[in-house]
Parts: sequence; C-alpha cells; structure tokens
Amino acid sequence: MQYLRNVWYVAAWDDEVASEALVQRTLLNESILLFRDEENQPHAIANRCPHRFAPLHLGKRVIGGVQCPYHGLQFNGQGQCIHNPQGAIPKAAVVRSYPLVEKYSMLWIWMGEPEQADPSKIPDFSCQDPNESYVAKRYLHVKANYVLETDNILDLSHIQFLHPGSLGSSAVASAITSVEQQGNTVISKRQTVGDILPEFLYRQRRIPVGTPVDRWIDVRWDAPASMLLEAGSVATGNPRNEGVSNFIAHIFTPETDTTSHYWYSVCNPLSTGDEGRDRAEAFVTGLTQPFRDEDLPMLEAQQQMIGEAEFWSLKPVLLAGDAGAVRARRVLDKMLAEERDLIAST
Amino acid sequence: MQYLRNVWYVAAWDDEVASEALVQRTLLNESILLFRDEENQPHAIANRCPHRFAPLHLGKRVIGGVQCPYHGLQFNGQGQCIHNPQGAIPKAAVVRSYPLVEKYSMLWIWMGEPEQADPSKIPDFSCQDPNESYVAKRYLHVKANYVLETDNILDLSHIQFLHPGSLGSSAVASAITSVEQQGNTVISKRQTVGDILPEFLYRQRRIPVGTPVDRWIDVRWDAPASMLLEAGSVATGNPRNEGVSNFIAHIFTPETDTTSHYWYSVCNPLSTGDEGRDRAEAFVTGLTQPFRDEDLPMLEAQQQMIGEAEFWSLKPVLLAGDAGAVRARRVLDKMLAEERDLIAST
Amino acid sequence: MQYLRNVWYVAAWDDEVASEALVQRTLLNESILLFRDEENQPHAIANRCPHRFAPLHLGKRVIGGVQCPYHGLQFNGQGQCIHNPQGAIPKAAVVRSYPLVEKYSMLWIWMGEPEQADPSKIPDFSCQDPNESYVAKRYLHVKANYVLETDNILDLSHIQFLHPGSLGSSAVASAITSVEQQGNTVISKRQTVGDILPEFLYRQRRIPVGTPVDRWIDVRWDAPASMLLEAGSVATGNPRNEGVSNFIAHIFTPETDTTSHYWYSVCNPLSTGDEGRDRAEAFVTGLTQPFRDEDLPMLEAQQQMIGEAEFWSLKPVLLAGDAGAVRARRVLDKMLAEERDLIAST
Repeated sequence: MQYLRNVWYVAAWDDEVASEALVQRTLLNESILLFRDEENQPHAIANRCPHRFAPLHLGKRVIGGVQCPYHGLQFNGQGQCIHNPQGAIPKAAVVRSYPLVEKYSMLWIWMGEPEQADPSKIPDFSCQDPNESYVAKRYLHVKANYVLETDNILDLSHIQFLHPGSLGSSAVASAITSVEQQGNTVISKRQTVGDILPEFLYRQRRIPVGTPVDRWIDVRWDAPASMLLEAGSVATGNPRNEGVSNFIAHIFTPETDTTSHYWYSVCNPLSTGDEGRDRAEAFVTGLTQPFRDEDLPMLEAQQQMIGEAEFWSLKPVLLAGDAGAVRARRVLDKMLAEERDLIAST
Repeated sequence: MQYLRNVWYVAAWDDEVASEALVQRTLLNESILLFRDEENQPHAIANRCPHRFAPLHLGKRVIGGVQCPYHGLQFNGQGQCIHNPQGAIPKAAVVRSYPLVEKYSMLWIWMGEPEQADPSKIPDFSCQDPNESYVAKRYLHVKANYVLETDNILDLSHIQFLHPGSLGSSAVASAITSVEQQGNTVISKRQTVGDILPEFLYRQRRIPVGTPVDRWIDVRWDAPASMLLEAGSVATGNPRNEGVSNFIAHIFTPETDTTSHYWYSVCNPLSTGDEGRDRAEAFVTGLTQPFRDEDLPMLEAQQQMIGEAEFWSLKPVLLAGDAGAVRARRVLDKMLAEERDLIAST
Repeated sequence: MQYLRNVWYVAAWDDEVASEALVQRTLLNESILLFRDEENQPHAIANRCPHRFAPLHLGKRVIGGVQCPYHGLQFNGQGQCIHNPQGAIPKAAVVRSYPLVEKYSMLWIWMGEPEQADPSKIPDFSCQDPNESYVAKRYLHVKANYVLETDNILDLSHIQFLHPGSLGSSAVASAITSVEQQGNTVISKRQTVGDILPEFLYRQRRIPVGTPVDRWIDVRWDAPASMLLEAGSVATGNPRNEGVSNFIAHIFTPETDTTSHYWYSVCNPLSTGDEGRDRAEAFVTGLTQPFRDEDLPMLEAQQQMIGEAEFWSLKPVLLAGDAGAVRARRVLDKMLAEERDLIAST
C-alpha cells in the first residue's frame, strides 16, 4: 500500500514518550524508535540496528542517544553511531532518522524527504497547545485501515444507527449538512434540530437532561487523517452563540495496511482551572465507551469484509452523507498520485 | 479452490436460524447472511453491505428485511434495498441473494446460476422430514477440507483403528464391501460378521451387551458431500430383517478450502413417541464423542500434513477400502470439470 | 530456503526417543517420525502415511515398525510397508527413510543422498560419549533462523551487554580474540582478563566468589551449526593449566526457515562420580536462565526485524567481533553453493 510521505503524521502524544523511555511504534509499516535525549528533545530513528538487526528499543537510553541491547553500539537522535565498544565507528553504522516536531501536545513525524519537512505545514491544532489548554488525551489501537476512520468521522449519519444510546439520536432525517474544500482541506458541517443527547453531554453543555437541542458538529479534515471537530449544542430555538461547544481532535496514523493508531482528545482552556480539567476528562471518558465499543468493532468488521481489496474496486454505493468522506478520499488519492508522479519523474 | 456451484449445499439446520436472528455463515469462502422474514420464510443474501461494506449480520431484523448496523440501509430477502434513511434508494444498492429451500429440517442453499435452482435436485433425506420423524440434530466445525470427510465416511475400514473402543471392532478382515454408482450417486455397502459393538449401540439395537453381531452400514453419497447411512445390526446368524437399523445423515459444506461445516443426525419416526425421541438423542450423543474426539483430530491432522497441496498431486496409495471414496472423488472431479467447461464455453 | 542436505543434523537427544515412543519433529521443513524398534535401534522415516496422509506419529509402535492411526498400514524403519490389513501390500506403499546414527548421546540424521551418509563425518563430540561422560542435556525451541544462533555463539562480545548479571562482565575492551579455519571447520577463541563471573561459575571453577579471573572460551564450529565450546577460567595472573574448564555443546537444527531446535549440554567425566554429575546439572541449569531469558528473546526479536529478508541483502555493518561468525557464514554459503552446483549438473 502506498502512503503519503511528504506530510506530517502523529507519532505519539508528548507524554507517551517519557524521559529515558525507548518507545517502539510501527508507522507506515516501519518500526520506529521514539525517545528523548537528556535535554528532553524527542527523536525518531529507525528501530533496527544496522549491525545484527536487533531492535534498539530493547536497549537503553544513554547520554547522547541509545545503546543497542545486543552488542552495545550507540546511536544519537540523528541516527549516527556515536560509540562502538569494539573500536572505530564503521562508516556504514547509521540508521535513518526522521524529522520530529513536538507541537500541540503531540509528536509529529515526517517520513518523506527531510528537506521538505516544514513544521508550518502541521495542521492547526492550537486548541491542544499545552500553554493554553488542558488536553484530555486518549489513544486506541484499531484493526482497520486509517481511511475507514476518515470515512467514519466525516459521515456522522452513523450516530443514529451505531450510537443511539451513547451519543444521541442525531436523527438523520432532520440533518442539515454541507461540505466545502479549501485547498487540500475538507470541511464537513452537520446540524441537527431537536436532537436528544446522552446524559454526559447534557452535563457538559449545562443543559437540563432530556431538553431537545440543536446540535452541530463541524469537522475539518487534513491529509492524511487529521481531523478537528467543533461540536456544540443549544436548547432548540436558541441562537448557537448561547450554546456550549468543544474542540475534539481525532487523528489517525497507519500502523500497517489494515491497522491504525488513533489519538483523540477534548480540551478546555487553562483558564477554566481544575473544573475545566475534570470536565475535559469526563467528556473524553464519555466518548471512549462508544468509540471503543461501538465504532472500533464496526471498523474492524468492515476491514474484515474488505480484506485485501482496494476500496474503490469494490464499487461502493454512495449516499448523500458520504459527500465529505468521498471528498477527502479524492484529495488523498490526488496527493498520492502526485507523489507517485514525483517519484516516477526522478 | 474451485467449488461446484450448481448443486444444493446445506447452509444450516432449520432451527439454527431462529426468527429475528441474523446468522452469518461462511460458505464456499463467501460470507452469507441467513435470516427469516416476518412470515418465517428463510433467506440467504450476501452479508456485505454495498455502501461501506459493513457486515449485515451485526444489524437487526426489521419488517421486510434486515437493517445495516452502520448507516441504516435496509435490504429484503431478495437482496433489494428497501429503505435509505438519507433519501432515494440508489439503483446500485443491491446485494446478491441465493435461492434457499427449507426441506428435511435443513436450509439448502444454491450458490450457482439461480435459474437452475431446482428443489427437486435436493437429495432425498426424507428420513429427516419433521412431519414424519423426530430428528436429533448436531453440528461440528472441522478444520479440514470437506472431501476428506467424504473419504472418511465412505471408507469405514478405519473404525477398527480409529474407533476400537467407541464404535466397535468392525474387523476389517471379515468385512464384505461393495460399491455401485447410479448416475452421479455412489452407494458403498459394508457388512461385518461377528462384530462386537459399543454398549450404547447394543442398547439402541436392543441386543444383549457383548453378543456378536452381523453389522451393516450402507452409505449413499451425493455431490458435493451429502451422505445418508442406513446402519443396523442383528445377533450373528439371524436374518437382517430381524435386526434394528437407523438412518444417520452426514452432510458437509466447505467453509473455506481447509475448513468445513458438518451436520449429522439420527432420526426416529414420530410414531415412536417420547421414547423414540430420547433414543435418537442418546444415539447421536453416543456418536458425537468418537466423531468429535477421534475423527476430527485425525481429519485435522491429515489436513495439516496435506497443507495447500492438491490431493491427487500427492499420489495417494490406493487400498481396497478406498473404492467408494475414490468413486465419489471421480464423480466430483467430473462435475467440477463440467462446470469449468461450461464457464469456458460462455 | 535452501538447506545443506549432505551433512549430519542432530534430530534429538538419545533419551528424547524412548522405546515405544513415536516422536514427531519437523526438521528442514519436513515432518519426520523418530522411533526405536524392538531392538532399541532408532529410525527416522517420513511422518506422512502415503495412503491418506495421516501423520504416523499418532499411531503406535508395533513389532517391526509403526502402525498408521487411520487405516492400520504398518511401516518399518526402512520405510517399507510391512502390513496392509486390507490385503496385499501395494508396491507404492513406501515412505522415505533417513540414515540415522546414535552417537555422542544424540541421534544424527542425514537428509541428503543416502549413499553419502558416512558416520565418520559426524563432528567430534566425544565429550558427550555416554561411556566416558555424564552428559547434562537440555533442549530449547527458538523462533529464529539457525544461522542467527551461530552468529550468537561465535561472537561472545554480546556477553557484556546481554548477560551482564548472569554470565559475567566479560569486558569487551579487554578481550583478545582470534579466528582460524581448518578445512570447513571454524575456530574462534576469546580470552578476557580480570573478568568478574556470576556466582554459579565461581562455584563450578572452585574460585572464591568475586575473584578477578582470566577467562577463555574457545569455540569450534562445523556446518550446519554444531558448536563445541571449551570454557574455563583461572584467578587472574595464574597459568591457564591451573584453572578449570568444561566442554559445552551448542547444536542447532533448522525446524523451519524462522525456527530452530537447540540442544546444549555440559559434561563431566564419569570418573567424577555423583559429584561430577550434580555439578554438570547445576552448570547447565545455571546456563539455561540466560540462554532462555536473555538470548532467546534477542534472537527472536532479531528474527522479527529481519522477517523474510535474506541476511546479506540487509547489508549488515561488520564489527571486529564478527570475524568468526562471518567466516562460518562464508563456509556455509560456499557449501550451499556447491550443493546447488551439484544439483544443477545432474
């Protein structure tokens, strides 16, 4: 499977890589080692020692880098060998290193051409800026291709069928939806009227339980699968600006062709204090149950039914609610084709 | 692996598909949904929703059909979409449906050309007619190719070696066997003299435990792997018509190339009342131990040794007892070749 | 994966094949049956019955051979069918048999051309001769290719990093190493000065715990992966002949391309009596912990990182300590190439 290379992927939450820890993570079918140096700078290098191919993450953090568990070669965050216990450092003793940026409470990795790794291309998740917000962070592992996840988030008509008890009725019939595209960014908006929410959402939005609400969920998608939702509600009939909304991030990185990493969060401004922190944690905990127990089994069942087949080769029937997801797939396919052309022309 | 298509396969016992239930079963490598409509009519349709490929069996039975668990499309037993919550029904929203007949306490599926699906071609298992007989039903899943099961049932010389304690001595040396073919039906008969039975069989046949018996097992095979046994015994020296015999069905359907579904039964006429019902249940329970604990491990071990190889490519040595099984394999191969020719000529 | 054929492989310890036992072992991707006849002679034959491909090891030992569990064919140690319960013995009822020699407490199998199976080519492990020595025997199963095991034993610089607590410091910096080749035999020697041993080794060598020692480990390698170590130590500054040393065998046979059988031992002369026996057992028990808990996980992790790739295609960086292992790999590759040429020219 071809993956976009010249794009930022999330590799981890910032606190998934503690100081001294050696974190192995497979991204785009490659085994990557994530670690922090003694100045707390995070690094990403190939996890396979070039000597006898031992995985470096079984070794240990040393001053200046990591030490291979098998014969003690040491490598720094740039992938250069900095110590050979048996003598001179062989010229070939190098592992690939990947540009890695810590931003918005996340570690962003660039697995394409290093000279193109421009941090300003990281999509805006400033709601997750740890200097501004408390970020309630979660991670799930999914046995499904990452684009199925994009499909899921960009077509929320599934709430009525997959999450009736847990995320609200969100009656499809009453939904007003729109899709726009700005460059390679896709924006999919959805508003329902007279919706009934699950209890934890009434508490979050400070609306009496059972009150019919107007509910909106606006999703911004950027390649490969980085989505930011602004989700809110207000008692039906009142203006949107009297309601309460939150930013919710959903970001996916392919692990393999049929498995994905899934990071999601709810944020509240630091100014909301302990109460805001507790509310963000309660919110993300409330979301975890339907994500883990309702979405994931469905995505994994889809993946089982699809198997190795290419998505479009199965000739999916398109419904109105697919507009956003299809737009995102088209953008992704175009970007993939551009990278193919680039490779072919060089 | 090529499978016969224009033939009736068993998909389930009638009571495996309860009303309201959505039963997923993989048959011939295809995921099939079995369900009953509100008139109790059973249906078989492809289990993969044509929209986003969710498996329909995770959805629910609705009036007129089934509802997809993900976005709520509904399909009837003919595979037609009957409801789209998001608007008009797309023309392409169709899943394949399969002719399905409820007969002899079983659901028979036709996975070939629908116009050829003639219910009169279902082999005669009228001993299982629920209007005539009490049918003690069992199901096992087998990790072996279905034709290995045909080999097993058509060569009962294995009883002496695989089932000495559980199904009797059935001394190979004393066996009189014959094989005939009528059209595509193979009939394999076997009689042993002075055999010793396991206790449960003496009770079934109402013969004092330990009495030497004459024992006959006549097997009728029809493609793909539908076998009916008439098995009986009488105290040695007495005429066969003074003995007691039963009909025992063994029917196999390929799940995948290396796994099979296995249905078997013992019947007694409804006229035998509760006693006949209890006796049929005791009989099939007595058979289950050797089938599950002796035959299945052997078949699965065979499959392991054969791996992906084509059976004849391994040049099996043939013994006298193989006559019936080889005949059945030849008929199956001829029928498969005919379907290949048919496909090639169209 | 190509394996050397015209070479002796270890199939089992002598006592792994008890009288009456039928032992299945996969060697070089082939399922082999090991058993002893009524004269206690060990035999190796293909484990797949040529009739219906049942694995013979599920059958039973009979006079003169083994009986197939499914239909009762019997085969002797030469692979010939000696009994067919259904009549005459078919000419084709034969399984392959393999030359098998019991020597040095082990069963050695020859999986190449039988006429070349010369027992004098078995490498010298006379330290394991049961008439001379007590042999403390162990077996481990390893999920890694057998040549990675050769790499491991021939480059003991890993002791410092992989076994610091369990097998001693063995400071790489102080090591004096040499490699020689005699025909197809590779000899790799290693001496360290001022080494600190684990407690169990001080006891074995009768040196006060904590005394700095001079330590030597001389390894002899023969294809495919049969290694004999002479390992000893003496308090630093004293001559080697005042120290204590032992013979330790490490022998590997490929099970599949990515899994191996591993036999290792420690011996003491029979003249050392019960004390020598107990000491050999304590020694091999002391070695088992680091072999099983430190080496095996590393080898299996290496195998995971290498996957299906050919070793040299990954362009391993070479360090000084690799001299012996690389020499052995070159010899093995040369012998494999010779067998390829031989096959091509016939």
